[in-house]
Order: sequence, then structure tokens, then C-alpha cells
Amino acid sequence: MDMRNLKFLLYEVFDTVSLTRLPYYNEYNRKMLDMVLQAALELGQGLLYPVFQEMDREPPELAGDTVKVHPSVRGILKRFGEDGWISMTVPLELDGQQLPQVVADSCLFIFCSANYSAATYPGLSDGAARLIENFGSRELYDAYVPNMRSGRWQGTMALTEPEAGSSLADITTTAEPAGDGTYRIRGQKIFISAGDHDGVENVVHLMLAKIEGAPSGVRGISLFVVPKKRIAGDGSLVPNDVSTSGIFHKMGYRGCPIAQLSIGDRGDCRGYLVGEPHNGLRYMFQMMNEARIGVGIGATSMATAAYHAALDYASIRRQGRKTGDKDPDRPPVAIIEHADVKRMLLYQKAVTEGALSLLLQCSRYVDLKKAGSAEDAEKASLLLDLLTPVAKSYPAENGILAISQGLQCFGGSGYCDDYPLEQYYRDARIHPIHEGTTTIHGMDLLGRKVRMHDGRAFDLYVEEVGRAVEEAEKIPALEPYARELAETLQELRRVTGHLAGLQQTAGAEHGLADATLYLELFGIVAVAWQWLLQATAIERSPSPGPGEDDENFIKGKRYAFRYFFGYELPRTKGLIHRLMHTDGLTVEMNKEWF
Amino acid sequence: MDMRNLKFLLYEVFDTVSLTRLPYYNEYNRKMLDMVLQAALELGQGLLYPVFQEMDREPPELAGDTVKVHPSVRGILKRFGEDGWISMTVPLELDGQQLPQVVADSCLFIFCSANYSAATYPGLSDGAARLIENFGSRELYDAYVPNMRSGRWQGTMALTEPEAGSSLADITTTAEPAGDGTYRIRGQKIFISAGDHDGVENVVHLMLAKIEGAPSGVRGISLFVVPKKRIAGDGSLVPNDVSTSGIFHKMGYRGCPIAQLSIGDRGDCRGYLVGEPHNGLRYMFQMMNEARIGVGIGATSMATAAYHAALDYASIRRQGRKTGDKDPDRPPVAIIEHADVKRMLLYQKAVTEGALSLLLQCSRYVDLKKAGSAEDAEKASLLLDLLTPVAKSYPAENGILAISQGLQCFGGSGYCDDYPLEQYYRDARIHPIHEGTTTIHGMDLLGRKVRMHDGRAFDLYVEEVGRAVEEAEKIPALEPYARELAETLQELRRVTGHLAGLQQTAGAEHGLADATLYLELFGIVAVAWQWLLQATAIERSPSPGPGEDDENFIKGKRYAFRYFFGYELPRTKGLIHRLMHTDGLTVEMNKEWF
Repeated sequence: MDMRNLKFLLYEVFDTVSLTRLPYYNEYNRKMLDMVLQAALELGQGLLYPVFQEMDREPPELAGDTVKVHPSVRGILKRFGEDGWISMTVPLELDGQQLPQVVADSCLFIFCSANYSAATYPGLSDGAARLIENFGSRELYDAYVPNMRSGRWQGTMALTEPEAGSSLADITTTAEPAGDGTYRIRGQKIFISAGDHDGVENVVHLMLAKIEGAPSGVRGISLFVVPKKRIAGDGSLVPNDVSTSGIFHKMGYRGCPIAQLSIGDRGDCRGYLVGEPHNGLRYMFQMMNEARIGVGIGATSMATAAYHAALDYASIRRQGRKTGDKDPDRPPVAIIEHADVKRMLLYQKAVTEGALSLLLQCSRYVDLKKAGSAEDAEKASLLLDLLTPVAKSYPAENGILAISQGLQCFGGSGYCDDYPLEQYYRDARIHPIHEGTTTIHGMDLLGRKVRMHDGRAFDLYVEEVGRAVEEAEKIPALEPYARELAETLQELRRVTGHLAGLQQTAGAEHGLADATLYLELFGIVAVAWQWLLQATAIERSPSPGPGEDDENFIKGKRYAFRYFFGYELPRTKGLIHRLMHTDGLTVEMNKEWF
Repeated sequence: MDMRNLKFLLYEVFDTVSLTRLPYYNEYNRKMLDMVLQAALELGQGLLYPVFQEMDREPPELAGDTVKVHPSVRGILKRFGEDGWISMTVPLELDGQQLPQVVADSCLFIFCSANYSAATYPGLSDGAARLIENFGSRELYDAYVPNMRSGRWQGTMALTEPEAGSSLADITTTAEPAGDGTYRIRGQKIFISAGDHDGVENVVHLMLAKIEGAPSGVRGISLFVVPKKRIAGDGSLVPNDVSTSGIFHKMGYRGCPIAQLSIGDRGDCRGYLVGEPHNGLRYMFQMMNEARIGVGIGATSMATAAYHAALDYASIRRQGRKTGDKDPDRPPVAIIEHADVKRMLLYQKAVTEGALSLLLQCSRYVDLKKAGSAEDAEKASLLLDLLTPVAKSYPAENGILAISQGLQCFGGSGYCDDYPLEQYYRDARIHPIHEGTTTIHGMDLLGRKVRMHDGRAFDLYVEEVGRAVEEAEKIPALEPYARELAETLQELRRVTGHLAGLQQTAGAEHGLADATLYLELFGIVAVAWQWLLQATAIERSPSPGPGEDDENFIKGKRYAFRYFFGYELPRTKGLIHRLMHTDGLTVEMNKEWF
């Protein structure tokens, strides 16, 4: 990754220093934040990246009843726990770092660039611990959270079942009151990331289950803490009848085990209710929404790492002459001299830096929601809700394409394991699947988010983009681009109105049939907005430093910005055309006709 | 794959029976062609598909100085040789089958759907043998070709070197006249498919090298037969100083070894010149162009197999309720009931059936070039030249996306090796790389093919598409689609003129900077043309059979056709916009600014 770019976004685009003027964050200043980033970088380089390839080549294995993971996992979790990386945003009063989310997410970006699989272990513990912190009892907190945040215990989110993935309404894991305030849990869970491993002493599942007699559907789901080993009366750890019945052999993302769990086979699994009964899905959505932003960051990180690998290779690898140069006696040029290679690299740069910008925008909303004024907090909360499916899906989908272009820069070598591109290509394919498929996010965005509170979140979004347009219009060099974005934004409004109307008139199935395309359109517009913000920051103070590096950085930003508007934004034309001509084709299509 | 669809294309769209009225093919009739297809299907099902997964899980290994491949390879080559599948299009007088190319390529499609890696071995032998047949001496032919066509020896194309992949002008393998009519070859070759393996007794490389003193660049390249074991005076096989110095560990396409060869390390490698000196690249282009169509077929086959796997899974896997159905007590529906899953499946159907149609169109041009009237042959030859980069790249690029959508239909299961999708996903990524990267094909199309002979090939193409439009316009149901294609075709002409002009005024580098996007645009239009041809065939005789299957088939075709025009053709809008606003962005971009 590129620290210069990260700091540009943090400080020049999003003015993160302004957050430290809010009471909640006033323990921090720019220098301290820089030190945090530097420490994260060193950890990524020293601890995570060195085992990036090894963790792929030596994937987890089920050995007896436990999952053997790469030996480095234990040390990574220990170090992350000791140094406070599993409690970055936890309040000081709970022994956390109380860091701004935007900085914590920047650290996550650094970690995931170095080794996505490794970074998921502490990330999951952090999210699971926060669920207990926010919704669980004091006893639950004391019993579990400190051990999770210290890296000694692993936290997970245990939602998916063999017959319930996208449709959580259909989970069948049951919880029977044991009479002592605890519950006996029975069921099967699959695809549980870090669901079991020998790098920790215990695994704490934040698990969805249905209490007997609960209403059917999502309104009957409760949330439980279900540890692999429960704490006995004497404080010792005893087995809790959670066994690992298998692990999945994945194409990529192989450093982290994905487990299948059998719960309560012997009728002796205790679960501890978190919060109120039947409210589990609502609680879980806190972790899911965080995890979705986390997936967006992971997808962006991988694509960023792949981009830099491709950039290095393209600068060294020599092949052919400049187009039009017919003299075979001239020495070959580095492939980065070829316009089409530069196009592929600009695509990667435009996607990754644009996506990172969008994600930090969301992180900033988290900070404002948590620490801003009441008005800012309300707005930020709505904008965050609206943008979460976009910030997850745009990097997930475009990250794959960016990595594919990176692989292409390597030619045949990109397809072989002498270079890291093939691993990034395999690793990245998980992102449009986990934490909600792209389909689910399209439905969420078009069916719920743009319409919630009478479209207030969407209106706020249009205002936000409009404000960016206004600022950019004041700068002559940016004026034509600002106008272009304003026009596309108008089209997005028109499409949104059309599809919202269609949901009313023709029903949800018709109105949402092309929700995935709507999500794609929305994502391009959102990232164009972010590029306009970046370009505005660049043109406002085009000489932030004296060095040649800064000049190169500014020029690179200008070209990537122009690339996005020149090559990516026009893709909206086809999408808009399609979305304005919805005809029920996919609704009418019958399975017998395939 | 779907035999019904293949026969629809062969007989109803392309009227393949008409070929059997040409003198060259009049040994054949419909019934015989059907028997050939059926035999290919049985071979694919019985011999190739059963080892599809195994060949991936047990990839080739370098053991000592030879490459150990899956034990089934020997039997596959033997069977293919014995049954005449390595000589499908070879003239009867040379003991071949003299089959129409369009039928031979249909068989290749069947084989590749079953197991792409396995199908490459005989395919390479066939192409290599034909080079000797067409350009080599009678002695060379007798010594090598019968053993290659019988499956006892492997043929290869040995072009790429460590420093010369896309730029063949830079090869450094040398050929020194030995004084006896043979040459001593020295050099290194990499990425040689089936470049060495223990499934055959000998490997015959069709190798590019430069004779000492030859002109530099591509005009100094000659073609040689360089066997692994040469034929001694007594007819026995003796080692020819070609050694395998390594094999590449690939992400996919693992059933076929890709070797690195050291040639003439001990100064004892003999090469046998094919044809005239310095004409090697011209000869090799025959095999390369065939191989490019072969890659298109392979890419389409994989995506077809993946599509059918996704279709099966989507029909069985139950999850969620129809959009808008809020009753959690209703049983879940098969995911094929969801509009977005149908959209993903329609995309796969539209891409794979459209690409196959384009490929068979090209195969038909090969037949007309070979056996048609002089006028037909000349036209077909030009159209084939023009369309080869498109027929290679459209399936290569879109096949990947189609497979990715297929994987997405499986959710998390698609990412795991319990299902074949993850293998297709890995396998397919080779296609935009081998036999010329997509960049190379874009440059070939825009820089050479559309301009050759004063644009005559392009003009012929516009006529061909125009004729399809005229026919379709006569059918009321197709009239609006025909008009849409006609309009897009006009835009394509406008873009082509603009970019050809730019090559003149601003130079090749500027004019070709977006050649890859031009190729993408051209591909969408070409496949839309093929879909219009298919729709015309359907609407002309909408009731080819009485059964329900046929009714379903027709409806499926109608929807896939509408899908292509509704969802894919609009993508040209963004591409056209970009291509008409070329601004030299990627040319100006400087490597220091990344």
C-alpha cells in the first residue's frame, strides 16, 4: 500500500485532524495518529506479510477435533492483543484506544494489504467482543471480552446454516431454556470464519438461534454467546459440546479456516443470551454492518497490494517497443511504457484509491455518528446505512476486476505461483459472497435503504454529492467534471424514482429485478464523487510539499481522476439505459426454458 | 453442454448441410455428421469428463528429466489417434476424415466442455502436424506426421522465450546450419503447453528460431521441427538434446503441463527447417490463428460447462422466498425462482450461446475458404482474418465473467472444491493470456484487421451484419431489435473511422491507445449479430418439433436473445462515448506518476 495516499485521504481529503477537536477524540493529535499508522505499517510488514504466501500454501487442516492453523496465527493474535489492536475503537474506560474509526479502518487497510487471512482473526474477535460490550450483560462482558481483546480467545459470528445462508429467517438452531438463565443450544453452523483453531485457548461464537416457541422468521431470532469451552463454577474451562465436524477447502482466503460446527450433539451445549430474546438479528446487524465495511476494506486492500505488485513488475519487465516503432534493433521498453498497460494500471489505481476513499468516508460517518453533534450524528447514521451496501460491494466486485487486470500485466507469469497475483485472484473471489452476496446488497440498497424514512438518506446523499460538485465547480480545471457528475447524479435520481415507482406499481419482484445493476450504477457514481473530492483537495493546494515525489503524486492523482471520469463514469450510460427500460424479462423467464 | 443447442446452431442457423453439397464435403450427409457429434459426446462423457477433476488435483510433476502427467493422458491420446480425432479435417487422401471445420470445431467444443486440459493434447498435435503437412517437405511429413496423428507423439508450438512473449521479434533461439541440410538449435523456450510428458514416446516441437545472419525482427524468424528424440539413420529414436528444465505451477488448467525447455545445451540438438528460411512467423500464424479460434472454443466450452453446473445447482438449492413474499412459514423456493439468479443464468446463457455461434460462424468461414467458390473463399478468408481476434477475445474475457456469475449462483459453495465452479474459475483465467493477450488482439483488430486492404474486410463485415439486419427486419417481432443493431453498427463504423483517422493524424500510439476497448465494443456487436441470426432462425420456423422440450428451447432462445439486447448491447453506449472522446490520457501518463 501507499502511505502517502492514505495520509492524503485522511488529512487532506477528510481532515481527520478535525475529529481530534471533538471531545471524544481529543486525546489524539496528528502526530499520535501518524505514529499509530506507522506502528500498523511495521506490524504489517514485519509480522503479517512474511507469512502471506505460506498461509496459503499450508492451509488449515482438521486434526481430530480441532483445526490446525498456521503456527504464526497464535503469535499474531497474541501480539495484536498485547499491543491493543483488537481494541482500537474501544473506549478508554474499557481499556481500549478510543481511536477514531477512520484511523482504525486505515490500520485495518494496512493489515489486510499485508495479509488478509491473518487480519481476519483479530478483526472477528473485535467485532464479536463489541456485540457483547454493547448488548450483553456485565457478567458476560467480564467473562468473555477481556480474553477476546487480549488475543487469547477467538471471537466469531455464527449465522449461516446448511439450509440458511442468504435467508437467515430459516435458521433451525434451537435454544431451550435450561432453567438457570442459560440455554441449551442445538444445531449446525457452516462457513464460520475462524470457527475453530489451535491458535487460541477458546473460541467464542456469537451465534444466532431460535428460542423454543419463538415467532417464525427473522422476528424469532435471538443472539447467544456460545463458547467452545465454557467457564465452570471454579473458573476452569470445560468443553461445551461444540464440535468441528469439518472445514471447507476454499479456492483462496486459505489462511483462515472456515468451519462446520455441530452444536449440542450430546445435549450439553450452553448458550448465554445476549440482550433481549428475539432481538438477535438486530444486534447482529451491528457486527454485520461493521463486517461489511471490513469486507470492503479487505477487498480494497487486496486489490491495492495486487496493484503495487503489478506496478513493480511492469516497471521492470521489458517487452516490445513503443507502438509505431518498427525498428527491431532498438532495445525493448519496460511494459509500463505501453499505453494499454498504463490503462490497466490506471484502472487499478482509480478503483483502489477511489474505493478506499469511499470506505474512509464511511468510517468518518461512524465517527460523526459516535462523537459528532446530534444533527451530524443523525445525518451520518443515515448516510452510513445507505452507503454500507455500496462500500461493501463496489470494492468486492471491482476489486476482482482490478486484480484480474493486475494479473494480466504479468502475462503468463501472473497465472503461475512464482508471483503473488494468482493468489490475490483466488483470495479476492470470496468478497462478493461473504457478509451478504452482491444480490442481497442490491436488494438492500434499492428495496430498503434508498426508500427508508421517505427517502431521507438518499436525499442527504444527493446533498452531499451536490456539495462536492459545488466546491469543485469553483475550480476551473474541475468544472467540466463536476458538471458531468451533477448530470449523472440527476440521472441516478431519475432511475431511483423510476424503480421506486415500479416497486409500487408492479410489485417488489419487478421493481427489484435489476437491483444488482442499480447497485453497480450507484457504486460508480459514489466513487466518482470520491474522486471529485480528491481532485478538489489536490487543486486547492496543489503543492503540499516541495519534493519531486509530491509532484509525481499530484500528477498521478490528476490522471487517475481523469481516468475514472473518462473510462469508468461512461459505463453508467448503459446501466441507466437498461434500468430505465426494465421490462420484467428476468421475472418472466421460466426455469424450464433454460 | 447442450446438444440441442449445438445442432440448432449447426443446422438451423448455419445450414451446415449445405456444406455437404460442396464437392469437397460431399462424402458427408446430415446423418453422418450427427453420428460424428454423438461419438464425440460419448468420448467426452466416457473418457474425458471422468478425469476432469482428478487431472486438476494431481497436476503434472517434473520427475528427473521428464514430466509425469496424469496416467489417463496416454490412453486419451491413443484413443483420439486411433479413432481419427487428431485428423478430423485432414484430407481423405492423407488418411484424414475431411470433416467440415464447423463440425470438427463442434467436436472440439464437446471435448473442451468435458475436460479442457485433456483436449489440448490432441489439439496441439493436430495443429503442429498440419504445419508440417502444409509447409514442410515430404520427408518431414513422412517422418513425423503419421506418429503425431496416431497419438503416439505429441506436437507443440514452441514460440515463447523468457524475454520474448508478446514480442516474438525478440526471440534469441538460434539455428546454425550443420552442413547436412539440418540445423543446430540452441535456446530457451518457456510456457510450452504439453511441452514434455510421459504420455507419449516423443514430442515434436514446431519451434521458432533465427538462422545465423538472419535479418533482425520478425523477418528473420524461421520455423523448425525440433523433436525431443530425433530419428537416427537406422530409424531408432535417439535423444535430441532438448531437456525440460522446469514446469510452471499454474493456478488452473493444471491437467496440461507447461514446460520450460533448454535446447541444445550440449550442442547436439538438430532442427529441421520447415519451408523457406525467414518465413517462419508467416507459417506459424496458420497454427496460431487456428489456436486462437481453439482458445475461443475452449473458453466458451468451460463457461458452458459452468453454466450447466450452475443451472443444476440453482434448480435444486432452496433458499428464501420470492421477493415480496413476507410469509416465513411458506417453504423456501429453489433459487432459480429468484429474478437475480435468473439474470445471472441468462447472462451465462447469452454469453456462451452467443460466443459459440460466433465461433461456428468463423468455422464456417474456414470451410468456405477451403471449399467454397473463389468469390466465397476470398470473402470468407477476409472475414475470418477480421473476426479471429474477436472470436478469441470475446469468449476469453466474457467467459471469465460468466463463470464468475456461475460461481456466484452457488454462494459460498462455489468458492469451495466440493463443486466444480472454483476449478472452472481458475482454469478460465488463462484464456485472455495464451495465444496472444487481449491487448495484442485489440491492436491486431484496430491497427491491422479493420484497415487491411483499404478496409475491405471491415466493409464485408458491415455487409454481413447488414444482411442479417435486413432478414430480421422482415419479421415484425424482431424489427425493433434489428433496428437497434443497425444503429449500433452505424456507431461502430463511426468509431472505426474516428480511430483510423486518429492513427493517421495523431500516430499509432494515440490511435491504438484504447484498442482493447474497441475490441470489447466490436465483440458485443458481433455477438449481438449472432443472436439476431439465432432469433431469425427461431422465428422463421418457430415450431421445429412437436415436443415440450422444443417449446421450452424456443422460449429460452427468445429470452436469451432479449437478454443480450436488453442488458449487453447497451454496454456499447459507454464504450462508444469513451472511444469518441479519446484524449491521449494513457499515452501521456508517465510511469513516475503511478
